[in-house]
Amino acid sequence: MSEVTKEPAAGKADTKPDGRFRVHFMPHEKEVLVEKGANLLDAAQNAGVYLNASCGGKGVCGGCKVRVNAGNVKTRYSPKITDMEERHGIRQACLCSVESDLEIFVPKRSRADAGALPDDEGVAARHSVDFAPELRPPWRLDPPVKRLYIEAVPPAPNDNINDLTRVMRALKTSHGIEDAAVDFRVLKTLPREARKDNWKLTLTLNSLRRDAPGGDLEGYAQRRPRIVHMEGSNTAEKHYAIAVDIGTTTVAVELLDVHEGKVLARRSEYNAQISRGEDVISRILYAEKEGGLKELQNLVAGTINSLIDKLLNDTGVERKYVFGMSAAGNTTMTHIFLDLDVRHIRRSPYTPVMFMAPQVPANELGLNLEEYVRVYTFPMVASYVGGDIVSGVVSNGMYLRPELTLYMDIGTNGEIVLGNKEWLLTASASAGSAFEGGGIEYGMRATIGAIDSVMIDHFTAKPDYDTIGKMPPRGICGSGIIDLAAELMVAGILGPDGKFDTSRHCPRLRETEGLTEYVVEYADNTGIGEDIVFTEMDVDNLMRAKAAMYAGYNTLLESVNMDVSDLDRVLIAGGFGRGLKFKNAIALGLLPDIDPSRIRYVGNGSLIGARLICFSEALMSDAERVGAMMTNFELSETPKFMEHYVAALFLPHTEIERFPSVVKRKEKASYAGDKSDAVSTWHGQ
Amino acid sequence: MSEVTKEPAAGKADTKPDGRFRVHFMPHEKEVLVEKGANLLDAAQNAGVYLNASCGGKGVCGGCKVRVNAGNVKTRYSPKITDMEERHGIRQACLCSVESDLEIFVPKRSRADAGALPDDEGVAARHSVDFAPELRPPWRLDPPVKRLYIEAVPPAPNDNINDLTRVMRALKTSHGIEDAAVDFRVLKTLPREARKDNWKLTLTLNSLRRDAPGGDLEGYAQRRPRIVHMEGSNTAEKHYAIAVDIGTTTVAVELLDVHEGKVLARRSEYNAQISRGEDVISRILYAEKEGGLKELQNLVAGTINSLIDKLLNDTGVERKYVFGMSAAGNTTMTHIFLDLDVRHIRRSPYTPVMFMAPQVPANELGLNLEEYVRVYTFPMVASYVGGDIVSGVVSNGMYLRPELTLYMDIGTNGEIVLGNKEWLLTASASAGSAFEGGGIEYGMRATIGAIDSVMIDHFTAKPDYDTIGKMPPRGICGSGIIDLAAELMVAGILGPDGKFDTSRHCPRLRETEGLTEYVVEYADNTGIGEDIVFTEMDVDNLMRAKAAMYAGYNTLLESVNMDVSDLDRVLIAGGFGRGLKFKNAIALGLLPDIDPSRIRYVGNGSLIGARLICFSEALMSDAERVGAMMTNFELSETPKFMEHYVAALFLPHTEIERFPSVVKRKEKASYAGDKSDAVSTWHGQ
Repeated sequence: MSEVTKEPAAGKADTKPDGRFRVHFMPHEKEVLVEKGANLLDAAQNAGVYLNASCGGKGVCGGCKVRVNAGNVKTRYSPKITDMEERHGIRQACLCSVESDLEIFVPKRSRADAGALPDDEGVAARHSVDFAPELRPPWRLDPPVKRLYIEAVPPAPNDNINDLTRVMRALKTSHGIEDAAVDFRVLKTLPREARKDNWKLTLTLNSLRRDAPGGDLEGYAQRRPRIVHMEGSNTAEKHYAIAVDIGTTTVAVELLDVHEGKVLARRSEYNAQISRGEDVISRILYAEKEGGLKELQNLVAGTINSLIDKLLNDTGVERKYVFGMSAAGNTTMTHIFLDLDVRHIRRSPYTPVMFMAPQVPANELGLNLEEYVRVYTFPMVASYVGGDIVSGVVSNGMYLRPELTLYMDIGTNGEIVLGNKEWLLTASASAGSAFEGGGIEYGMRATIGAIDSVMIDHFTAKPDYDTIGKMPPRGICGSGIIDLAAELMVAGILGPDGKFDTSRHCPRLRETEGLTEYVVEYADNTGIGEDIVFTEMDVDNLMRAKAAMYAGYNTLLESVNMDVSDLDRVLIAGGFGRGLKFKNAIALGLLPDIDPSRIRYVGNGSLIGARLICFSEALMSDAERVGAMMTNFELSETPKFMEHYVAALFLPHTEIERFPSVVKRKEKASYAGDKSDAVSTWHGQ
Repeated sequence: MSEVTKEPAAGKADTKPDGRFRVHFMPHEKEVLVEKGANLLDAAQNAGVYLNASCGGKGVCGGCKVRVNAGNVKTRYSPKITDMEERHGIRQACLCSVESDLEIFVPKRSRADAGALPDDEGVAARHSVDFAPELRPPWRLDPPVKRLYIEAVPPAPNDNINDLTRVMRALKTSHGIEDAAVDFRVLKTLPREARKDNWKLTLTLNSLRRDAPGGDLEGYAQRRPRIVHMEGSNTAEKHYAIAVDIGTTTVAVELLDVHEGKVLARRSEYNAQISRGEDVISRILYAEKEGGLKELQNLVAGTINSLIDKLLNDTGVERKYVFGMSAAGNTTMTHIFLDLDVRHIRRSPYTPVMFMAPQVPANELGLNLEEYVRVYTFPMVASYVGGDIVSGVVSNGMYLRPELTLYMDIGTNGEIVLGNKEWLLTASASAGSAFEGGGIEYGMRATIGAIDSVMIDHFTAKPDYDTIGKMPPRGICGSGIIDLAAELMVAGILGPDGKFDTSRHCPRLRETEGLTEYVVEYADNTGIGEDIVFTEMDVDNLMRAKAAMYAGYNTLLESVNMDVSDLDRVLIAGGFGRGLKFKNAIALGLLPDIDPSRIRYVGNGSLIGARLICFSEALMSDAERVGAMMTNFELSETPKFMEHYVAALFLPHTEIERFPSVVKRKEKASYAGDKSDAVSTWHGQ
């Protein structure tokens, strides 16, 4: 350990009366009191300052670099800190302990910027943002949690049967339900509620499947409806539910009006677990620490609670009328959300605890909902094909159609589903996080300041780009990376081998430390005070990611003796797909070279599926059926996959005849060499 | 309000530093600190001093009289305090508030003497005390909560299904169970327990019925077994359960070895609710007070917890291996135990909340058992025919036999079941508590010092009695009262109209305030320093009680066109029956005049039934069936009942020909008049 001392802030005592230290974060102007020796990354988390600690605080990613403006920290060996940074007080927060009051500056590159999500996200949406609604399976409003109004016959001397039987009789008379079970706690309120409005009552019945399932996807039984709540008088119209997509990066929540069958509001936020690791593997590693699993569970529950609070506030809906909740997430996210051990998911032979969880009372998960709310989680298929995929397939209805559909959810991981109403194959491709900006020098998530769309002028090789929020660029997100690489490739500036063609004298190409890079924007015009560049290393990472996806779906197709020409439809889900230009994704060899009209962006399929099952008991059953229909391919154990993968490590592919449209496009649009847009002009700005 | 001031105890401050007062109880030598103004009866309860507050603290019974030796109390108008008592510092504790430190003396008559239960009760019983075991329905050991050992196949790269499915497969292979559900919390321990001993596991499966029932007795469905606990390695032999009889007066608990199918130990204690009212009506009244229900629930849970602690201590059984619990009680006791509203049970038209409760997690009821223990309560039939009766019928097997059986549980209330394997009729007779010593001047419960057996010398009219514990008599319990009345009646000292025959010059008869009374024992020989007498008022109360029972079973018999000559068997349950001489009960007209060999005492039927269903899933199903078979008669709404009742207000009956054996007995044993045992002799002692 080396001790680093900076002068303490003038006029401030070193310790508070209770012996704790005050840590002040700039430019957030947030403060937190911590014990001596507390971890600085934890302190930031507690102050509500989110850092890009992609590695989960292990010190290897350098994403949590901060500047110590004032005060003392102790720091361990910091592999990501240069001598220059060391001299300027830059430290890796995850490796620092707090030794005095501190003033900490968080540079832009280190900020996770929670809440600054693009577009409709981050604010309440009055109307559903619903991509490709015509793909939905047919459904009618018949929710798995029902509110039913009854008028029971009041007791009389010649009819003094017990209260519960009286209610059950009315339920049978009015709604034909005679086999309902009842929650014990309902019995406590029954006598009072029943007499509040002379035996007029609104009952809430939960007929969610899987009260407590067997382990097999086929092992669940039809359940009796269960009375979970009773209220005097007729309040059946007040009936709301929460649908959640628990993404590794982002948590999206919708507040649903179940009585009307519509979305009232939607919000999303970063999953607060993000400061404990960027991808599922680092989350699992974190969960294996003492108390780590519970901490991660608390973090995601906190994110969901915060979103629910905001949605209720946005809409004025009373919390007590929220009766249902569904949650879709990948296998790891689902396990952590349920506080279940994840360590064996990453250890050979990769075994999750279960594929179908029972319904769990929301408050057992730390969710701030009434005790009668039970949480439904989607069935899972494998360690890396989870409930979010099952939910997505329910939302896009491919399991009901005769046509062959390829469904891809491209995010931190890439999941693939191929099939139709007869069969469904699934696979997970370790795409890396290039599509979310990971492993890309100036990559970033699709938040404010991200370059999300690029065109390259074929005469000047100059980029014409857009940023999210129309702000000066801070980096490049997935769709921008695809555009950039594809346009450079089509223009001939980037070769099919992933190397820049320096022979063309493009003024924006330059060499740094033996690698060629393309300058997307110069420091003076960016929001980070640095040049934003796209390097050959970036191209390499991108190529590996797209090759994994391509090899994945081709392996699945081949296993059923088909190829891409058999595909009737390709559906892209996940935030990455939103700004994606299909022709550029084809040009890179990520998507198959088919008529782009057959390719559709379907939005957050996982969230939409979670929503739909709150409206339709039949679709909830379908989710079980879809889970059971899916056959998972372990690609890493399929030799064909590796062949496809290696062949795809080229732009668009080693067999260019697979991409005839790309050949045509390149013929039309090649950059002819340095003609205008002098480097000096730009450098001079 | 009148303020009563006594000199404070010398050398003691009026208040403690925290402003509370110290209340010291004699002769218990127990102390408690209370706030100024606290109720003195509550203070006694908190100090662990149990008073005979039969009325539940309403000031009308006078059972909680105490003497204020030192200190100040405020007291309200006290109807039960005479001028003499007033002068001697005697107060009704329930009407007093604490105004300083106090020294309180509790006279013997006011002490409930918790723990001083007779016979095998109150101590651990190594062997089952089992009356009439030959009456049990046939059963084999197949408990509703099972512990099953499995050896699952450990995961491998070519077999990496999830942990839960792996366990389910083994459960199917080893035990043929393929539809088990699983508790969510089990999933939390599953990965760890499974790997503790290489996938050797002991599973605990709960297949109790009525996870959550419909309201009708017929409305329950067959349930799937549910895995509630998993433990690495083979511990299947460690398998215990708790059976409880929740009596209005006494709580009896057995610790069962379910693996062996035997009783390990038994204990009983007064239901701590006793200080809040003696009978179910006063308990209901208490429950209607603010917080009263919860208080009563806590009291009975506390009694059960204390008994379980002692049983575990007696036997060395580990608490975590207790997996099941069953509880039988009357409708009010069951409701209160489950913290369910009882107010409508005593209000026309007398509606309980439910007849079949779901299983309830033990710790939701405040029981100190593991979270996986669920409590089964027996089905109920009416507001005054509860789960204890259903349990008793299961234990005596009458629902399986062709013969006609009359089953009577005689306690604070008297419940009657008549029937055979085809049909069961039930009724509840408001017997009053005479059989438990209530409403009898010197009546008491069957505890230490109670006269429980009496013979009258036909020549001297002198009683020859036994007391429980061979102590000087403190009062007379139920069986003693029956003996006393019957023997006096047979001897001709007590007439068939319930009046003493003073013409016979019996030296022990005397008149006090216009009523004739028989002196059972003189003050010098008693344990209370007073004469113990038996009055005409007592006889009247006893006659009403026995008439209610007699009228009850005759009404039931008549409703099926039968009479007592059709009875094949009469079974008596309840503590009262233990010391009962059948010929005396017949002589009084309580029991029908049939061959006494057909009458059996069957012990605590409720407790035995609760025990048996822990051993046999089939008997648990039978309990549901018995509940459904029973047709309840509301005697108060049956005109025939009143006719029978009035006719039975005679000793033994207005129609003496119904009791031929009594006629014969009287002919042989009439007292001939004062011949020896001069009154003076006795008075002189």
